[in-house]
Amino acid sequence: MELDDLVTKTSNWLKNKGPKSKLVLSSRIRLARNLENLSFPHWAKKKDLLKIAQRIRPVLKKDSHFKNGILVEMENLNSLDRDFLVERHLISPEYERKEGRFLIIGEGEVISIMVNEEDHLRIQVLESGLQLRDCWLLINQLDEALNEAIGFAFDADWGYLTACPTNLGTGMRASVMVHLPGLAITREIHKVLPALTKLGIVVRGFYGEGSEAKGNAFQISNGATLGKGEEEIVAHMESLMTQLIGYEETARKNLLSREKNSVENKVWRAYGILQNSRFLTSQESISLLSTLRLGIELSIINLEMDLINELDVLTLPAHIQKIIGKSLSPQERDRARAKLVRDRLKRGKNV
Amino acid sequence: MELDDLVTKTSNWLKNKGPKSKLVLSSRIRLARNLENLSFPHWAKKKDLLKIAQRIRPVLKKDSHFKNGILVEMENLNSLDRDFLVERHLISPEYERKEGRFLIIGEGEVISIMVNEEDHLRIQVLESGLQLRDCWLLINQLDEALNEAIGFAFDADWGYLTACPTNLGTGMRASVMVHLPGLAITREIHKVLPALTKLGIVVRGFYGEGSEAKGNAFQISNGATLGKGEEEIVAHMESLMTQLIGYEETARKNLLSREKNSVENKVWRAYGILQNSRFLTSQESISLLSTLRLGIELSIINLEMDLINELDVLTLPAHIQKIIGKSLSPQERDRARAKLVRDRLKRGKNV
Repeated sequence: MELDDLVTKTSNWLKNKGPKSKLVLSSRIRLARNLENLSFPHWAKKKDLLKIAQRIRPVLKKDSHFKNGILVEMENLNSLDRDFLVERHLISPEYERKEGRFLIIGEGEVISIMVNEEDHLRIQVLESGLQLRDCWLLINQLDEALNEAIGFAFDADWGYLTACPTNLGTGMRASVMVHLPGLAITREIHKVLPALTKLGIVVRGFYGEGSEAKGNAFQISNGATLGKGEEEIVAHMESLMTQLIGYEETARKNLLSREKNSVENKVWRAYGILQNSRFLTSQESISLLSTLRLGIELSIINLEMDLINELDVLTLPAHIQKIIGKSLSPQERDRARAKLVRDRLKRGKNV
Repeated sequence: MELDDLVTKTSNWLKNKGPKSKLVLSSRIRLARNLENLSFPHWAKKKDLLKIAQRIRPVLKKDSHFKNGILVEMENLNSLDRDFLVERHLISPEYERKEGRFLIIGEGEVISIMVNEEDHLRIQVLESGLQLRDCWLLINQLDEALNEAIGFAFDADWGYLTACPTNLGTGMRASVMVHLPGLAITREIHKVLPALTKLGIVVRGFYGEGSEAKGNAFQISNGATLGKGEEEIVAHMESLMTQLIGYEETARKNLLSREKNSVENKVWRAYGILQNSRFLTSQESISLLSTLRLGIELSIINLEMDLINELDVLTLPAHIQKIIGKSLSPQERDRARAKLVRDRLKRGKNV
């Protein structure tokens, strides 16, 4: 497989197959791991980085999880492909395009590993719906196999040693992307999110740290990684998510009983605009697709959710340019985005 | 014919058959006429009003123009039907629902006469497109016939005597409803309209005196009626309109060459919203229909103009209620309006 094959292929986490996928877009676990007695990437010299990469590369290449996978050497990546991988949630925007850094992606983009980002290894499992436990089982098994092959830096007191102290302990971050339009429209979100924060939970918008929640999609993840076991964190997150889903479901019921007409009106207008617009900015597209998503979730409109999941990602700036096959000005992107959305909605139309 | 038959029937002036109907919605001429030696309606006693009506009624009833017509006694009219006739441009909002006042409407709503409104007779001819001269030929012929039968108050110096001095002379108002989105969007309208005003021309919005131009539709009419002949007024108006149409056509060409993409985007979005909305206020509907009209005029979208003309009128508050057959709250109207527009656009769809 080549990187460009991803453009036309749908990632597993977009397939809307996971449990509770009417509310939970995706579940993700990542582990920060480092090799023993070697500097963390930010402090490492170039030759150390190359040494680290050389040690890890053969192990990953022969691992069965990456049999039909893709290996991307970051130094060879152009900036459009970098942005594309960021939008795909496969790399961080900070991941440098320099020697000694490579990304490996498994089938369906479920497993991926960044080598020499902030830590020597950043292992990620990303799946559709609420399935943190399954993500954990998979990543744990991979973690053990890699530990055996490479040997990770571990301290009896501090747990896994990581570049940033906030990752000490398990080195694990478990996160879930949820769609909370019910809580957002009824404004209860302003009560719920601070309550989560008090429990040590971190809440971010769709595009990760610092970004605002666009299209009412929130990334919810565990804060502390030290002093808790991995299974404990996963269980805690799953229980909190079940509660949060309960709140969102209640909010949606209330919304339907109190404001059904206005929600219907909003949903159908969003559909009409997406079906017909000739220019569509990224921001407007995210917001209209969120409204359409709500419409599907509330059975107001009959469309495949996969279509919305796909459009959420395909309409992002780098994706649009990869689809068209060249670099585009913002205005050209808005035009291409509008056309893409029109074409897909026409194809997926079953109303 | 009954009044309710008008609800489902399309008036002639909405049929988009007249010359230049891509820019000119309708042409209208009205004459103010009064009987000799009888008080004008506002000063007349009830018995005088009845006497006037009794003298006029049989003449109009046997006139061939009203053979399949409708005679509406204003005292029997409920307020919804009054509003309906106002929206239909057949009566003024000030026309009182009292004894001695009646309206007579000819086939296709081309000719109509209000008896005992501000003057004893207000004769109107309303047609599609730019055809002031034809309107004048028709109204002039009717005027002569009625003058012969009834005898109108006329003074050698002042011309036709009318209740309001601004109508002295010919008692004629010639007006044209034009759609000027090109001049409006390019903001040239702010130069053109004051220039017309300086020439003694009166410019008003869609709903007559004092109202703002909604949906970029402007009513342009002659100011002075004294000191000029009827044919002279008509010729002057037609020549001004031809000039104005030229300006509008140039503005549209400029618009297409400079802002085609943005106009296309606006037109298609308006179509998408009209096709899908579940609530539609009167104001939003007027504005979106105007955008759609421009889209048809500029060949951006392929729809029948008749459909837009019809919707312009059918979506007005009283029309909506007449169609549904009962009085509705504003919210119910917005809902019914959205449904009507959706249904009609689906039926008239040929894109």
